[in-house]
Amino acid sequence: MNDSLAGDLDRIARELDRAHVFHSWSAQGQSPQLVVASGRGCRVWDHAGREYLDFSSQLVNVNIGHQHPVVVEAIREQAELLTTIAPSTVNFARGQAAKRIVDRAPGGFEKVFFTNGGADANENAIRMARLHTGRDKILSTYRSYHGNTGSAIVSTGDWRRIPNEFARGHVHFFGPYLYRSEFWATTPEQESERALQHLRRVIEAEGPASIAAVLLESIPGTAGIMIPPPGYLAGVRELCDRHGILLILDEVMCGFGRSGRWFAFDGYDVRPDLITFAKGVNSGYVPAGGVVISDEIAATFDERVFPGGLTYSGHPLAMASIVATLDVMESEGIVANAAAIGETEIGPALAELAEKHEVIGEVRGEGVFWAMELVADRETREPLPAAEMGRLKGAMLERGLLPFVQDNRIHVVPPCVVTAEEVAEAVAIYDDVLATA
Amino acid sequence: MNDSLAGDLDRIARELDRAHVFHSWSAQGQSPQLVVASGRGCRVWDHAGREYLDFSSQLVNVNIGHQHPVVVEAIREQAELLTTIAPSTVNFARGQAAKRIVDRAPGGFEKVFFTNGGADANENAIRMARLHTGRDKILSTYRSYHGNTGSAIVSTGDWRRIPNEFARGHVHFFGPYLYRSEFWATTPEQESERALQHLRRVIEAEGPASIAAVLLESIPGTAGIMIPPPGYLAGVRELCDRHGILLILDEVMCGFGRSGRWFAFDGYDVRPDLITFAKGVNSGYVPAGGVVISDEIAATFDERVFPGGLTYSGHPLAMASIVATLDVMESEGIVANAAAIGETEIGPALAELAEKHEVIGEVRGEGVFWAMELVADRETREPLPAAEMGRLKGAMLERGLLPFVQDNRIHVVPPCVVTAEEVAEAVAIYDDVLATA
Ligand SMILES: Cc1ncc(COP(=O)(O)O)c(C=O)c1O
Ligand SMILES: Cc1ncc(COP(=O)(O)O)c(C=O)c1O
Repeated sequence: MNDSLAGDLDRIARELDRAHVFHSWSAQGQSPQLVVASGRGCRVWDHAGREYLDFSSQLVNVNIGHQHPVVVEAIREQAELLTTIAPSTVNFARGQAAKRIVDRAPGGFEKVFFTNGGADANENAIRMARLHTGRDKILSTYRSYHGNTGSAIVSTGDWRRIPNEFARGHVHFFGPYLYRSEFWATTPEQESERALQHLRRVIEAEGPASIAAVLLESIPGTAGIMIPPPGYLAGVRELCDRHGILLILDEVMCGFGRSGRWFAFDGYDVRPDLITFAKGVNSGYVPAGGVVISDEIAATFDERVFPGGLTYSGHPLAMASIVATLDVMESEGIVANAAAIGETEIGPALAELAEKHEVIGEVRGEGVFWAMELVADRETREPLPAAEMGRLKGAMLERGLLPFVQDNRIHVVPPCVVTAEEVAEAVAIYDDVLATA
Repeated sequence: MNDSLAGDLDRIARELDRAHVFHSWSAQGQSPQLVVASGRGCRVWDHAGREYLDFSSQLVNVNIGHQHPVVVEAIREQAELLTTIAPSTVNFARGQAAKRIVDRAPGGFEKVFFTNGGADANENAIRMARLHTGRDKILSTYRSYHGNTGSAIVSTGDWRRIPNEFARGHVHFFGPYLYRSEFWATTPEQESERALQHLRRVIEAEGPASIAAVLLESIPGTAGIMIPPPGYLAGVRELCDRHGILLILDEVMCGFGRSGRWFAFDGYDVRPDLITFAKGVNSGYVPAGGVVISDEIAATFDERVFPGGLTYSGHPLAMASIVATLDVMESEGIVANAAAIGETEIGPALAELAEKHEVIGEVRGEGVFWAMELVADRETREPLPAAEMGRLKGAMLERGLLPFVQDNRIHVVPPCVVTAEEVAEAVAIYDDVLATA
């Protein structure tokens, strides 16, 4: 592309955006900085061909990287055949996608309800839990994000819930987070034990018979990628079982390869009743999400009408992209790559950065799902101020790295296909920029 | 395709569906009957090549018909370039799609917030209305459907709300529906006047200062395609203005050509504050929806953070399909076709059917948005029983017509590209089948 055309496209794209696009989670006065025109693997480009190494996976969704040719081709083929059809019909791509998903779930999960994304996946899981148990309350953690729709946003624990509390029946508790323990704990084991005792007390105080489900991200993502401490998830399961409470695990961000496993909870001794997913299931190439339903809960709706649905449930174009994505992840060993690269490259490299830079308070993670927690003071663990985080973000972009910056953290969340060389390239930029902090 | 392969595909598709797909709004014990493998224009086919004339537009979404080649090609091209990118970036296709939409809206609407479908469009419109006004309550009608997520389902008036009432701040009232008047009215003018008086009383009794918005389908769709009587929408606007209440018009089903106009409300003397859309904007080829925002409300979020968002807001693949769809609708005169065919073909043909068949209590509609209300008795207007409706539906399918049957009504809702010949073909089947009622 010649320079003047590229410049025009860039300018027009920015003008159209400023004039007409209303953006998520932001004040509309400032426009986004970054124009993205195309992508491939772990890289994206603007119109002028300026390249960025994508260590954000966008919103932690392009697990197979940008524009995987096999998935792109599958979308193009399905587009040719049949893009859309009502949920009340039988469609081949839809059945295949559901089969691919349940094949990766534990035994006893045979059915999938498809949605358009993560929020409506959680909405429908919450609906199923309430109807199955005949109970009302949903417990979830303060450090969580579950989506922007009515019930999903009130299950969410973070600041985004506060201006949106229009649904009832939601109660929040504290999950384990040793680095900033809410329980005065000093070891992972103690954090786990005390977090469980806290949850037990909340359940008792709320009244176990009023609680339909505990909803948890298997590994809280946006809140800071907190790997559950030993025994925590199994302990939650036990508490749920004791009181007939269902366990919904939100695998929207941590699922489908991100943790180095198909489902993040596969790494822990726990079996949920409902699993919600989106993002990684098809890397977001076509909007899709859903709920994997245990047989007991599915059976509740054999004779009883399930009162939920949406026009694009099981949308053929989305379904074809799921089928191709899961097949490619399997055949190219993409999940195994995420596990290996986390263990041999990202983990050690971030540990080294933490030794070098005082500003890093903690690094934690697995697979391609890591956080560096930046602090003004290692003793007090006071978060690095927002302005300084903004400056670091700008400096990384400047150097051609697209980072994921959240609160006082850099989340190191490249696509699952990332190579050792790309990790080294990104780490060198983190290193450079953190040296200025 | 040879017969045995077609038979295999059909069988496998059904088996996969039965085993693994959890369907919207239904008991899962019965599986869907219809397998759809491909489509074109107003027709779809199963694997064996059995053809159906689609007078449902699926869920009243394929306004440009199935598999329009220009839109399919646009999706294929965008798939090649860039399927997905975070909402916080600038993207060319996204700005273009927003521009195409505001160009068709009234003056004073410059910004679009994109979602994945109709439910989350309404969720975000409700959020904007509450934050803009600082008020809580949302008024909507009993005969309405607004989506399946937390707040959207509680705005919904129909039976689907009842098992899902977990959001607060929603109040329902009766809209105009002369055929089954809630106001003992006998003329359209009287129905309009009395419906307005009823709404005025509900507003007064709820407390005007507590009401953020009135949310209405411009033409209620699933509830029965009730064309608003003279003066009703203008009267609602006036009531809203008097009390600083916002008016959200849900154009998810009635918008983008369905009524024979770009927006259904264009036919009435009314200007909303927020417009929600999905379905027709891209015929659902890729999941998409959104909110068109008036300048006053957009300005509220210039400095203040908008607390809503989703991973796939402004998804490039969806955006490219919107751009192509709206361009094709324009260049091929598809909206004008919907208007003309409604006036010269569908309207007169349904009126003729109504003269012939006692079972038709009323026909009403415009564009490609019509309902035949079937009754056991014209005097009492007692709805035709569900079992008989089911039998009629089976008989139409049997004859190769894919109908839209809802309660005691047949909605006549073909794609906007439908021809006079196709209308004649469908009407002949309605005629045949209604003769057996
Ligand atoms: C854990 C989790 N759940 C749910 C969601 C909501 O997904 P969506 O944005 O597709 O609605 C997200 C999005 O970031 C998420 O991270
Ligand atoms: C008027 C109206 N609003 C909202 C919706 C919900 O749209 P979706 O199914 O895409 O969530 C529908 C769907 O039928 C509708 O008809």
